[in-house]
Formats: sequence, C-alpha cells, structure tokens
Amino acid sequence: MRPVSSTSKIGGCGMSEFRKDPLSDHWVIIAPNRAERPEQFGLGSLERSTGRCPFCRGHEADTPAQTAAYSATGRLIDQGPWQVRVIPNKFPAVENVREQRPEQRDFFRSRHGVGVHEVIIECPDHVTAFSHLSDQQISLVFQAYRDRMAYWRGDPRLAYAQIFKNSGASAGASLEHAHSQLIATPVVPTQIENELVRSADYFQQHGRCVFCEMIRRELADPIRLVEQTEQFVAFCPFASQFPYETWILPRQHGSHFEFTEDGRLVGLAVMLRKILGRMEHLLNDPGFNYLIHTAPFGSTHLSHYHWHVEILPRVSNTAGFEWGAGDYINMVTPEQAAHVLRFGREPDGRQT
Amino acid sequence: MRPVSSTSKIGGCGMSEFRKDPLSDHWVIIAPNRAERPEQFGLGSLERSTGRCPFCRGHEADTPAQTAAYSATGRLIDQGPWQVRVIPNKFPAVENVREQRPEQRDFFRSRHGVGVHEVIIECPDHVTAFSHLSDQQISLVFQAYRDRMAYWRGDPRLAYAQIFKNSGASAGASLEHAHSQLIATPVVPTQIENELVRSADYFQQHGRCVFCEMIRRELADPIRLVEQTEQFVAFCPFASQFPYETWILPRQHGSHFEFTEDGRLVGLAVMLRKILGRMEHLLNDPGFNYLIHTAPFGSTHLSHYHWHVEILPRVSNTAGFEWGAGDYINMVTPEQAAHVLRFGREPDGRQT
Repeated sequence: MRPVSSTSKIGGCGMSEFRKDPLSDHWVIIAPNRAERPEQFGLGSLERSTGRCPFCRGHEADTPAQTAAYSATGRLIDQGPWQVRVIPNKFPAVENVREQRPEQRDFFRSRHGVGVHEVIIECPDHVTAFSHLSDQQISLVFQAYRDRMAYWRGDPRLAYAQIFKNSGASAGASLEHAHSQLIATPVVPTQIENELVRSADYFQQHGRCVFCEMIRRELADPIRLVEQTEQFVAFCPFASQFPYETWILPRQHGSHFEFTEDGRLVGLAVMLRKILGRMEHLLNDPGFNYLIHTAPFGSTHLSHYHWHVEILPRVSNTAGFEWGAGDYINMVTPEQAAHVLRFGREPDGRQT
Repeated sequence: MRPVSSTSKIGGCGMSEFRKDPLSDHWVIIAPNRAERPEQFGLGSLERSTGRCPFCRGHEADTPAQTAAYSATGRLIDQGPWQVRVIPNKFPAVENVREQRPEQRDFFRSRHGVGVHEVIIECPDHVTAFSHLSDQQISLVFQAYRDRMAYWRGDPRLAYAQIFKNSGASAGASLEHAHSQLIATPVVPTQIENELVRSADYFQQHGRCVFCEMIRRELADPIRLVEQTEQFVAFCPFASQFPYETWILPRQHGSHFEFTEDGRLVGLAVMLRKILGRMEHLLNDPGFNYLIHTAPFGSTHLSHYHWHVEILPRVSNTAGFEWGAGDYINMVTPEQAAHVLRFGREPDGRQT
C-alpha cells in the first residue's frame, strides 16, 4: 500500500497556511506541498548516497537557483567553486509570495502561510557528518546563517528567522549531505514569544538578563558545565528536556544573532564542532538537531534577551506522556550528561 | 560501544525530580532510574516476541505485584483468569513514596519527583495491535483507566493523572504486548494548565464551553468530521499538529473522565477501535499515541473544560523547526486527513 499523498485542494488548503490552536496557542503551519518530498513520511528512511546527491558540487542544476554562495575566503560569489551554498527549499513549508490573503479571525484563526524556506548546503563534497567539516568550513556555514538572517531582517513581511539543522533520519533529515535550514515567518514562534515574555519579567524583577545570570551560576558551580572559552560557555541546562541537551551562549550579552562579528562566529563554530564530535563519539553517533534562538527582527539590542544555540541529540524518543502533558521525561540528569560530555566518561569512572 | 547508563547520583539526583524550565515554564521530570530499562535508548528497537513476554498471562511473576485486575465481566479480582491487569511500572518516571523533600524555589526551581506510574496490560494473550482486541476487551481497558483515575483522585499527594498509550517503537513503546500507562503527579501538566486557562477565558467571554462550540461547528460543516454516534464525535482538529491527528469528544459536556458511566465507556471503546483500525489499514500501520485530556483532581464538574481523547499517529517525524519554534509543520491538511479516515480514500477518488 502506498502512503497517502496530499495533492488535493480540499477546503482551499492547497497552499500553506498558519493556523492558531485555540487551546495551546501554538501556531501550526499546514504545508500540503511539502508532502510531495521524495522521502515523504520518511520515518527512518534516510536517502542514501547510492542515488545522485543534489547537494554535491557539480549537481547545481538539480536544485532551484541559489540565493547566495560563498568562496573559501567567505566572499559572496556568483560562480566558481563554492564552499557554502544557499538555495530555496524545493518543498517549502511556507510560500515566498508577495501578496497575502487577509487574516481570518473567526472562531478558527488562520493566516496565509507566507514566508521563506531556504537550505544551507554546508560543503561541496558529500560529507555527511558535521563534525568532519573543518573549523574553517563550519565558520563559513555560520557566516551564511548570519548573513541570510541579516538579509531577511530587511523584508517587511517577516518577523523572525529560525535557523535549524536536522542530522540523521531520527532527527527528521531527509537527505544525508550536510545541510541546515532557515524558515522565516511573519509570526514570532510561540517558544520565542514565551522566552521574550519570561526574560522581560525577570529583567523587570531583578534588573538583569536571566541568561547572563544562568551563565554566572553555571560557571560558579560548574556541575553542568561542558566547555568554556573567552567568548562562549556551553552547559547542559538545569531543566534539560532531552538527555545530553547542551546550550552554547556567548558570554558577552547580545540579543540578535545577526549582529555577531566574524571573529565570534569562528569561536562558536569551533566550540560547536567539538561538542558534536564528542556526542558522536560518546553517544553512539546519534541523530541530532541544533537551532539558534534569537530575538525577533522587529527589535534591536534587547537587554533582557540573549541569543544562543541549543543542541538536542536524539538518544530517546518522545512519547505519549510528552505530547499529552507538554512536559518532558528526561532519563539522564543534566549533571551526569555534562560530566560525560566534559570528561568523556561517567562520574563513577567507567569509560563509555 | 555500550550506551551510557545513568546510575550515578551526581548532584543528589539519583531520585526523580521535577524541574521547572525558567523560560518555557514547562516541567521536566528528571528520572535517572528509568534509564535502566532493558531497551534503554531504544529508538526503533522494539523488544520482539522472541523473548519471554512479561505481560502475558502465566508470567505474572515477571512483573511487580498487580494493583488491580479485572475478569471478563469487569469484576475486580485477586486471582483467577484476568482480562486486564494493572501493575506498577518497573522503571517508573516518578516515585511512589510518602515523604517528600521540600520544594526548592531558588533561581533553579525543583521539587521531589513523587507520583505514581502504572502499566495497564490490555489483554492476557500476546496481542500487539490494539485494533485486534474485541470491543468488549477495549471497554474493559477503558473501565480500568476510569477506575484507576478515580482511585488516585483520592490521594492527597496527587493533582493529575495522565493516561496514555505508546504503540510501536516510533511512538516510544518498548514492549509490544498491548499496554498503556498512567502517570499521576502532584503538578498539573503544562498543557492541561494552558487548556484550562484558555477554556476559562473563552467561557467568560462567550458564556459557553469552547469544546462544545468546536463540536457544534465541526458537525455544522463536517469537512473535518471522521465519525459520529449519539454519544461521541471524532474529527481532525482545525489546527492539527500532526498528520491525521484525530480527537474524540463526548457530545454531552463533562470535564472529568473519571466520572464517565460504563455505557459511555463502551461507546468510546467502539469508536476508538474503529478509528485506529482505519489508520492501521489506510496509513500503513503507523506507530501512534493516544491520550486522555481531563480536568485536574482538585476540581469537580467544570463548565468550561471538556474531557477528550487525542489520537496522534506517527506518520512523520518531529524535527528541529518544531523543537526550536514550539510550533508545528503539518504536511496533511486536517480536511484531507478527515476525508481519508472517513471514506477510506483521498478526495480525488484514488484508492489509498
């Protein structure tokens, strides 16, 4: 039996649409066109390198035309050998169109699924493990993230850009060539909205950034510390939702990732690569997601918000309790997770 | 390389603990003992029937002592042939202990992971597909849900009981013999808290239950309707987070599942079995979760809340965008999903 496809236009929903859940207040992007991806419903069915890879250099004609490409020195180029390439997603979750249908504010609230969905191809060769890229190559990837975010910031249709990477089939990847994605939307994501509200509350009560305070505490009593440099701190957060969840925060307060200077991007790339390499080695090469949390476009230099990177390895599955409760069960204490990621062994001395 | 285990007591966290995420406001249950489950980190590694199944009748000694068991006529029995059996989870996420450590309300907020974690074994024989159980057997399962919830309602330590089923490895199941679970906690889950707040708001503004209004609208314009009987209505919600997500609601307003009469439980069982059977048949036998959303123990007969069952088939994976944004991308419109589940074919007439 073939899987059910989604081409029909029932209810006028052949196009993307944002729908607001009246009870959870979450947005849902209804994206029927995305179901046409070749690996449709590809739980565990990662497309293997046996086929022709559309992301390899030389196969540029297999993808939509690029929106940006970088040379090895970080220059934007139109042609010639690229090191990082940005393209529109062929099966986008949102539609990059100018005109927008008006918002529906009936009992059921919805608005047109306008937005931008790009793919950042992280290297020209068929490398599949992010940690196998060089520090320099990863720095280029982060430069691309920053530049694309800065670019879309100028688009009046958009309120936020979410950068994320799905690595491995268990983490939702459908192609194995190292890549990440950007989805920019006219709505600020629910989770960012929550963080903004709560961090503003904290600032008002305590006169300081809650993230800066977190950094201070994690350094003062380093039981959850994974790595630190002059520029960045990495730790397993106190209320980690997932085993081995790790956050990287810049020590210097900053709310907008797109304002980060080149030098700092390199420092971030080096630290991220190191931590992902350790996860690969110590946790049996798990699938993972990482994502950048940053302040919305419609603001500059917020004193209460602090951009950061969240790394979420997939060593366990999310099940009925989590979907029902909206709360999480984590089988590994963040203190133990940090110990393993920092020292490469469990606290009792056993080698992993 | 063996997976990392979690026996150590670093940070005094060998016991279960509820931790509050300061930014998302979600609770996280840190449950290190649960990592000792045999199928630890078992992404996709469902324990097959090749081994001895601890849930089959005759193997009662392989599990902790039962807390309840039912005969074929629905009588509670101490011995003799059971049809449904309830046992404490051998690897509980929360600890059923009397004394509680005091709550920590420092920068990092936490409280002792007190609670109850039970397994409901749904049949005596090694049946793995819920839809292969008889309507009568499923009615017994729902009777057990209701009775266990009514029982724990009387426990002053507890505020809420979450009933859920994980079916298939992709949905987080670790054993294949048909079973479901109950986790009762001293905290009300974040998602239920949200639903209570929003449904109370709606009631205050409009003078009626938002769920009753939803039922009215889904019946008036049945584009998302899946099934209806005199007692129950099933539809794919307007802002479904997952492809083919389906909710079952009682037509008659009721806030507490544990107050449901026997006759209604039978009607619910029959409808649930029918819908799950169709999903199995039409969607290539996906993993799924279902769960019961109900009002907390500390209340009776709320006019703004309406208990219901949510069915969440796993036909796609949750990836970086969802974790980062807290919002969802759904590739199948709820209108199309409902059409498929109702008529067994796509809207354009193709057989699935």
